[in-house]
Formats: sequence, C-alpha cells, structure tokens
Amino acid sequence: MIENRFPGKDITPEDLLHKFPLAAKRDPAHRTVFSVAGIEFGGQNIPVFAGPNMVESLELILDVAEKIQLAGAHFLRGGAFKPLTFPYRSKKYTETREQGIEWLKAAKEKFGIPIITEVMEEKYIPLIAAVSDILQIGSRNMQNFPLLTACAKTGRPIMLKRHYGASLRDWLGAAEYILLEGNSRVILCERGVSVPHTHRNTSRFLLDVQVIPAAREITHLPLVVDPSHATFWRNWVKPMTLASVAAGADGVMIEVHPDPSNSAVDSLQPINYGDFRALMIEMDLVARSVGRTVLSKLA
Amino acid sequence: MIENRFPGKDITPEDLLHKFPLAAKRDPAHRTVFSVAGIEFGGQNIPVFAGPNMVESLELILDVAEKIQLAGAHFLRGGAFKPLTFPYRSKKYTETREQGIEWLKAAKEKFGIPIITEVMEEKYIPLIAAVSDILQIGSRNMQNFPLLTACAKTGRPIMLKRHYGASLRDWLGAAEYILLEGNSRVILCERGVSVPHTHRNTSRFLLDVQVIPAAREITHLPLVVDPSHATFWRNWVKPMTLASVAAGADGVMIEVHPDPSNSAVDSLQPINYGDFRALMIEMDLVARSVGRTVLSKLA
Amino acid sequence: MIENRFPGKDITPEDLLHKFPLAAKRDPAHRTVFSVAGIEFGGQNIPVFAGPNMVESLELILDVAEKIQLAGAHFLRGGAFKPLTFPYRSKKYTETREQGIEWLKAAKEKFGIPIITEVMEEKYIPLIAAVSDILQIGSRNMQNFPLLTACAKTGRPIMLKRHYGASLRDWLGAAEYILLEGNSRVILCERGVSVPHTHRNTSRFLLDVQVIPAAREITHLPLVVDPSHATFWRNWVKPMTLASVAAGADGVMIEVHPDPSNSAVDSLQPINYGDFRALMIEMDLVARSVGRTVLSKLA
Amino acid sequence: MIENRFPGKDITPEDLLHKFPLAAKRDPAHRTVFSVAGIEFGGQNIPVFAGPNMVESLELILDVAEKIQLAGAHFLRGGAFKPLTFPYRSKKYTETREQGIEWLKAAKEKFGIPIITEVMEEKYIPLIAAVSDILQIGSRNMQNFPLLTACAKTGRPIMLKRHYGASLRDWLGAAEYILLEGNSRVILCERGVSVPHTHRNTSRFLLDVQVIPAAREITHLPLVVDPSHATFWRNWVKPMTLASVAAGADGVMIEVHPDPSNSAVDSLQPINYGDFRALMIEMDLVARSVGRTVLSKLA
Repeated sequence: MIENRFPGKDITPEDLLHKFPLAAKRDPAHRTVFSVAGIEFGGQNIPVFAGPNMVESLELILDVAEKIQLAGAHFLRGGAFKPLTFPYRSKKYTETREQGIEWLKAAKEKFGIPIITEVMEEKYIPLIAAVSDILQIGSRNMQNFPLLTACAKTGRPIMLKRHYGASLRDWLGAAEYILLEGNSRVILCERGVSVPHTHRNTSRFLLDVQVIPAAREITHLPLVVDPSHATFWRNWVKPMTLASVAAGADGVMIEVHPDPSNSAVDSLQPINYGDFRALMIEMDLVARSVGRTVLSKLA
Repeated sequence: MIENRFPGKDITPEDLLHKFPLAAKRDPAHRTVFSVAGIEFGGQNIPVFAGPNMVESLELILDVAEKIQLAGAHFLRGGAFKPLTFPYRSKKYTETREQGIEWLKAAKEKFGIPIITEVMEEKYIPLIAAVSDILQIGSRNMQNFPLLTACAKTGRPIMLKRHYGASLRDWLGAAEYILLEGNSRVILCERGVSVPHTHRNTSRFLLDVQVIPAAREITHLPLVVDPSHATFWRNWVKPMTLASVAAGADGVMIEVHPDPSNSAVDSLQPINYGDFRALMIEMDLVARSVGRTVLSKLA
Repeated sequence: MIENRFPGKDITPEDLLHKFPLAAKRDPAHRTVFSVAGIEFGGQNIPVFAGPNMVESLELILDVAEKIQLAGAHFLRGGAFKPLTFPYRSKKYTETREQGIEWLKAAKEKFGIPIITEVMEEKYIPLIAAVSDILQIGSRNMQNFPLLTACAKTGRPIMLKRHYGASLRDWLGAAEYILLEGNSRVILCERGVSVPHTHRNTSRFLLDVQVIPAAREITHLPLVVDPSHATFWRNWVKPMTLASVAAGADGVMIEVHPDPSNSAVDSLQPINYGDFRALMIEMDLVARSVGRTVLSKLA
Repeated sequence: MIENRFPGKDITPEDLLHKFPLAAKRDPAHRTVFSVAGIEFGGQNIPVFAGPNMVESLELILDVAEKIQLAGAHFLRGGAFKPLTFPYRSKKYTETREQGIEWLKAAKEKFGIPIITEVMEEKYIPLIAAVSDILQIGSRNMQNFPLLTACAKTGRPIMLKRHYGASLRDWLGAAEYILLEGNSRVILCERGVSVPHTHRNTSRFLLDVQVIPAAREITHLPLVVDPSHATFWRNWVKPMTLASVAAGADGVMIEVHPDPSNSAVDSLQPINYGDFRALMIEMDLVARSVGRTVLSKLA
C-alpha cells in the first residue's frame, strides 16, 4: 500500500486497502502496462483514439479511418449505439446500431486499424465484442455494475469513462468491479466534470486535468483524456489536449470529422483532418518535452 | 468586437461591448504586451514568479531571492500582509507587514530582482507601491472595487487573482474597474476554483486549466497561473505547471521554500530549491514545444 | 406550452416543445394527479414512504411495516437489490435480493401496506413488479434508458430519482423516455445534489429544495423528496423534511429503523420509531399551514 | 464544546475550539438572543427585513416603508452604496450614496421603522452607522477583514452575508473577526450559493436551506435567509421563504417594490405590496406550525 497524504480526507488508506485494493497501487512505482492489438497502454508512447462521434455511414467511416491512420492515430473511434438525453432525434441523427458495427468492421478489415466503440446494453455485448478491440463504457453507465461485470467477463480491455459528477474514489470503485472479474486491462477516461456555473465560462464541462496527477498518485491503471467532449468546443481541443499530455495523460481521444459543422451530433466539437494532422505533431512535440512520444516511429 | 460562439449563454456579445469593453478583445488577434521592470508580459517568453508564501525573515527572503534568480525566475514573490481565514495565528505564523516590505526591498536592492506582493488595505498602498513592481490583489479582494480603483490609480501594474468562486465574466468585470482608471497593465491570475466535492480528489481546489483558452478567446490581457495554491500539494505542482504552459499560460507563480515542510503557512504546497531548478528547465522544454520559452537567454 | 422566463438559458421554450413535450406542462395550471394502491399523488394529501434502507430480515421488515403504518405512513420502502459503490461488503451488509422481495411481499400481505423498492436490472423486473406497487429507479440509473423503457412497459408507476449530478433538464429528459412508452404515472424524486465542497458543511449532498418550485414551473409531474439520503445525517432530516413540505413537495421518503445506529448500511441517516411518529405530526402541521395535509384522516 | 459528528471532516472539534471559539456553541442548547431597536433576534419571533434593492428616491422609500410596516415587517432594507459587477451603469441605475442614506433617515424618522443598509467602504462607516440600526456586510466583502473589524468597532449589530462560494467554516471564521472585537451582535445571512451548472435550473444561485440546521448544530448565532437574491426570480420567493422558516431560519430578508418590473436593478426578483402582505401571513402560519411566529402581536 502507498501512503496517502490526507489520511481521513476524501480517499483514505483504508480505501486503498479495502475499497479498491485491485485498482490501488501497491507501491509508488507500480504501473500497469498492457497491449491491445499490439499497441501499448501505460508505457512510453501515448496512443490516440480518433474518429467521428457517430458512425454515420460506411463512406464516412472509411474515409475517416484512412485519414486518421495516415496522421498517426492508433485506434478508430465511433459510436453506433448512442441514445441521447431526450428520446427524440433530429433527422440528421440516427443510431446506426448493428449496421454501424458492420461499418466499423469494414474499416478495421480494410485498414487494419483497431476499433473502440461503446456498449450500452448487455444484450449487444457479443455483437460489439466481436469487432471492437476495446469496449467503451460511457459516463452515464459508469456505475451500471451489471453492465460492467458482463463486459469484464468477455476478457476484452475496457475503457471506463468517468461520470461528470463522480469522484475519483467512486470511479476507482467502478473499476474495481471490472478488475474483480479477473479482467486487468482497464483504461480510465476523464471526459470533463460538471462545475459551478460560475466557472464554466462558455462550455458545458471542465476537463479535470488535475485528476491526472491525482489518479497517478493512487492507481496503477492508465488514464486517457477526452478533450472533445469535455470542452464541447473545437477551438479549445488543442490547448486542452496539449495540457493533458504535459500533465501525464496515457492516451487521448479526439473527435475528428471531415466536415465538422455538418456532423450528425455535437457539431461544435469535432476538428477537421488538417487540424488533426497538425495536432498529432504538436502532441508529439509536447510528449517529447516530458519524455514520452505520440508518434513513436519518429523516435 | 469578436464573435462569441454561444450568443445568449454565459458571456454574450453584449457583455463584450458594454460590460467589459476595455478588457475584451477588439479582434481575434488582439493581445496586450507590456513590460514590467524590463520583463515582457503577454509576449513570447513566459515570466516566472517564485518565492515563499510569507516573507518570514530577512535571511529567508535573501536566500530564496538568490536561489530562484540563479534558477532563472523573473520575479520574487512573498506575502508581508496576509490575514488568514481565522483571526488566530499559530506561533510560527506572523504577518511581518512593514518589516516584511523592508525585507523585500533589501532583496530587490541586493539582487536586482523585481518584486510582487499583495495589497490588502488602501492605507498601505503607498508603502507597498514604493517597493513592489506589481501590486497583487488576492482572490478574496477580487471584487473589492474601492481597493482595485485605489491600486489602479498608482499606475503600477496589477495582478488580479480570480476568486475561487468567480466566473470569467465577473473576473473580467473586476479587471474593467482597473482598466477604466487608465491603468492598462493588468495581469489575470488563475489560482484554482472550488468544485463539487465529488471532483476534488484530495485537494482543496481544482486548477481551471480550461480558463486559459477560454480567456484567450475573449480578452487581450495576459493570464498567469498559480498551481501551488490551486493544488495545495507540492507533488502536483510540476504536472499542473507543465499543463498550464502547454495550454498557453502567459506566466506562472510557484511557491518555493528552502525547507518546505517547515514553512510558516500551507507547508504542503511549496517545493524546494532543487525541484524548482528542475521545474524551470522542464517548463522551458514544454514552452519550446509550443513555440515559447521560459529561459529566453537559452533561445 | 407555458412561457419560460429565461429564453435562451438553461431550459428553453424549444425544450418544452421538442425535448420533453410529454413531461412539460401544457398550461400553468396543468398538474398530473393519479392513484397508486388507492393513494393519490399530485393531490392535496402528501404521501409518505418510510422504512429501512435495506430489507435486512423478515422480522425487521414486519416490525417496521407495522410501526410506520400506525404512525400514518402510506408506503413501505426497503431495498432488496442494492449494489454499493465498491464491490466488497461488510459482514453486516448483504443484498437480500429474491429473499428480500419475498419479505416485502409478506409485509404487504400482513399489513395491506403498498410497497416501493428499487429495480437495478432488467431481468428482475417481473419478480419485483409482482410485489412492488411502484418501481423505483435509483439515481445511478437515471439515464439507463434501456432499464427505464423496460420498467415503463410493465405499466407500473415509476419513481425516478434524480442523479446527484443531473440538471432538471436532463432529469425531465429521462422522464420523457418513460412517458413515451405510454406510462403516465411517473413520480420525480429529489435526493440531494453534489455541491462545491465549500458548501457541503459536514454532509455529502445538499438537498435541492429550490428544484421544487423550479420543477413545478415547467412540469405537471408530482415531485417527492428524500431528505434521508440527501442529508446523510438524521438530525437534519426533520428540518429538511419540513422545508420540503413548506416549499410544495408532493411526497416524502424517510428512512426509519428500530435501531438506527445498527442499521446494515448508512447508519447515520435513519431515524427511530419515536422520531418518525413525531415527524408525521410535524409534517402534517406544516402541510396544513400551506393548505395541504399528510394525515388526511384528521382533516 | 459540542461534539461534531464527522471528526476529521470539514469542520473538526479543533475548529470549534481554536478556529472560531467565540462563534461556536459552548453546549448543544447554547443560543444567542439579542435585541436591535427593540426587536429580538434568535428568539421565538422571526424578524422580517423588507424593502427595495436600491433606495431609488425619497418618494419610493417613504412609500415602501409605510406599506411594509403596515404588513408587519420589522426592518426597512435598501441599498444606497452598491457597486455592480461591471463599472458601467444603466440610465435607471445610480447609486444614491449620501443622498440615499438621507432618505433612509427620513423614512426612519417618519415611520419609526429601524433600518438595515450595506457598508462597502471604511470611510462611510460613520455616515451609515448614524442611521442604520444594523450594518450589512455584502457577500463580496465577507472576507474583507479590515472592513469587518472597522464595522465591529462601532458597536452596531452586524449582518454578515455569506459569500456565494464560501463554506460554513470560512463564514464562521469571518464572524469570529467581528466577535473578537467584543461585538457580540452578529447575524449570519445565507443568500444563495453557486452550484454546478447542472443543478441551477433557471436561476443563478441555489438557496442553501440545509445550512440552516448545519449552522444551528455548531453556532449560537442567529441566521437570516435572503430568498430574493438567492432565487433571482420572484415566483420562487414564497416557496423558498416558507421552506426557510420551516427549516428554522431566525429571520427573512425580502425584496419589495411597488412596481417590481420597473425596479432600478435586478427587476426579476422583487415582489409587489400585495404579494408581500400575503407572504407575511403565510410565513406566520408556517412559523406557528413549527412553534414560532412572524406576526407576534397575533400570538
């Protein structure tokens, strides 16, 4: 067990021993490093997930897969199952569901790029796990323990997004449910927290960059950040991505779309191909300044 | 006037025109660049303020001044007037007041390093302005408008700390009070915001890194960050400093003490000389990766 | 459609028309009133749910059912399925699951008191719906839309707890998923929100009393409050319950246990039988002062 | 010293003994009761402060004074010195300053009603203390300790508004600065806290009703609430006022204006004379249901 600096405060030594012993570090140097589809997490290189919010069409996903791979991205991301806050959809927005999973599979086969997509319901796990190299748990489901356990049992790596209202303590509690099933490939993903309205400037959420060193202090699990959802505004994606890399993030998820302002959902947040290519290089420069890399082949 | 992406939301085009027209950018490229004691703010190089929380003694402040200057810091910081949350003091902690200002003056004269220290009351402005190159307004006084106006009238540059519960909009409203007096050398300073307890991990505040691009979008004023107060924990100072530099901060304020765990107040947050020397070089590396510098002489 | 006072702000007229048209009021006087097991919701009398956090044993639940019914409570509450934040349990705490549902059924049959208990997984809906007069959705599942839809299809009334990090807007979006299935008996339940740590005093959550008039302004659905979970401290249950009734709450959920400090979980929050009997009378007095009742037989 | 239920958490037994020993209760029954202009605070009757946000004119203040006194209000409130968030004023809004204080004096002399108004700067204390029966410290100045100390020295009772971002702990720390000057007539005033934007519904602040029992647990000082500023919306003033009285508030401050939508500032929040008269009676009914009164002459 490692020492905790504020005994009796938010996270106690007892928590580390008894609440999330599998997620907690055993000693200060303890880090988990593992590979998914040949790509290392928790190591020296920082993997990048990129792609559209929604798998809108086969043409779109093939085009994005090709372009982000050329730019150096490691994983293709895209949502096929994704209910919204309200049960009504705009004409533009349709969950592509089984069809979307097929299209992701086509992109994977054509370009050899690994896939990450979200699981919303237990019954679709086999379908999704057959294609997706990492199963993503969305922030609304962070404490949907039956879903977490069912995903864990597939043995697939799992990326667990933090609820925008969840503490680091509760987040690690949810991770513990997965680890307890014997599935050790858990990736944490910070995607913005809700904040006093007085701090939110003109965005919906605030990317909690500080949770990167805070998590590093007590857990050995790799931590990825998602600045696109957190900032909800494409112009802030670059500075917040670079900040996250400088602070020690182990991965980054970026929304990319060929025509951002016409994307099917949340059209303020994706960046275009040109900006993504530039960002990959800028990320790599910042990563190298802190002893890591993003574009490792250039190392 | 620049366009605001969320008309009708937190900060509106009307705010930019009528609430804080002097603090608002006139066009997207508008930046204020000015010099204090020969050191440029808002430019390519990123100034660093360093020093102890409190000016505890003449010996301490002379030692710190020498060591941080050797490491490349641009300003010596230290509090002489600093009431606490509660009216009772520990034996260790005494405001050194007039005496402390004398000691800062001695350090300035001996090492030629410019000074920044806090003003708490109108009546001490002449005393402090005679020594301090920048007048610091603490976060509790962010909306103490009579104090702001009185400081503005000295013509000294002013660093305005954000209240931990204040919006960017209110912060710029406070800056406008200073600018309206014809004093254009205003520096904003982010020092951590209060957050839902569920996000605070084991710290008191959360450094709002996202306010760096948010402020950059609408104001031309330089923005400095203070990761020491925000994190309240020395181990997180380095990652949050590097994150701030990567996100575009125009300056950094760091608490440094020769014997951090024995500093007179907030002994969890200062870093020691060795860590500060290393941090200056790490900051410079990250700054260079985003096209700026910290140690400009090496450029 | 009703007018919204802050067009362009958090909840817009468009939201009322297009995001949650079924949950929104059609006109200012629009209220939904319906009966469950002969007890009216949204009407003049204010129903009270009472009982232990957990259905610990048959003896316990029979004893509590008898005592709260004598005091005037309308529903027996108690959890049988209830995973915790962390996957490990204390010796005291065991989910009683199918067994617990059996015990609730026994209490219902013996005392004729209707039941409310929580549904966590789709597969247990038939089992629970056979006994529970109202299906409770816990705050962690507020946006578990497949679960909401499946519960809605049973035709049972549904009590939807607000997530501690959810806006009124998102909460009504979740209610809309239920209403869209043709199930119109939806009860909203406020159970405390997470707040800046600076406001939390010594509690975990803050009961959002202000959401009572805010919800009343835009939705016709009845709203219940749960001061026990919100305050997490039995001494504050009485003042916050009375405040909620004075502010217009349509129901109250109170944790009651014969031996509060030995309850299986969250032992700081239940009140004992004597305090509950007194609280029923105090609630009734406050309710009468605002033109309603709790103990309607005395009317 | 009283026992604190969460040793080691937000407020500790050490805080009660060493941080704010004068503000802390000495035993659970400890309450401070004192009189101002013959009106008791902290006792069985609940005083009401009413009046306009701003002392706009002599006619206005005389009219309001007469009407609220007839309705049973105990104090006339109104701002003469009141800088805004931004340094520019609308045509409607002008600080009436020395003139406004004169008008308050005229109302006091004509109707014999005591006055409460805000002090913003040390230099105006003698002017204001000559007229105002209670000196009000606004939330922005809660931690302006020199101002607090100077006000304390006048011997006048002081109403200390909580900063919207301040903890109960910090608030009591500020009260301690006043008590330490030997001035024991301190009234706390809750006026709404900033909250995660996800909870704010359509208001700016959330009235922290829960702080009423929380403060009662540890301090002997009377606590007043200000639902007008907290809700920023006149339709919610009545339910939140009644909630506060039911929860144990020791006083209420209500904004009243003859023509609310044309008031000089914050025109969404005042209520008119008719609504105020009705509210006085409703408050009294709720107060009686919890063993207190508002209109004590009817007792």
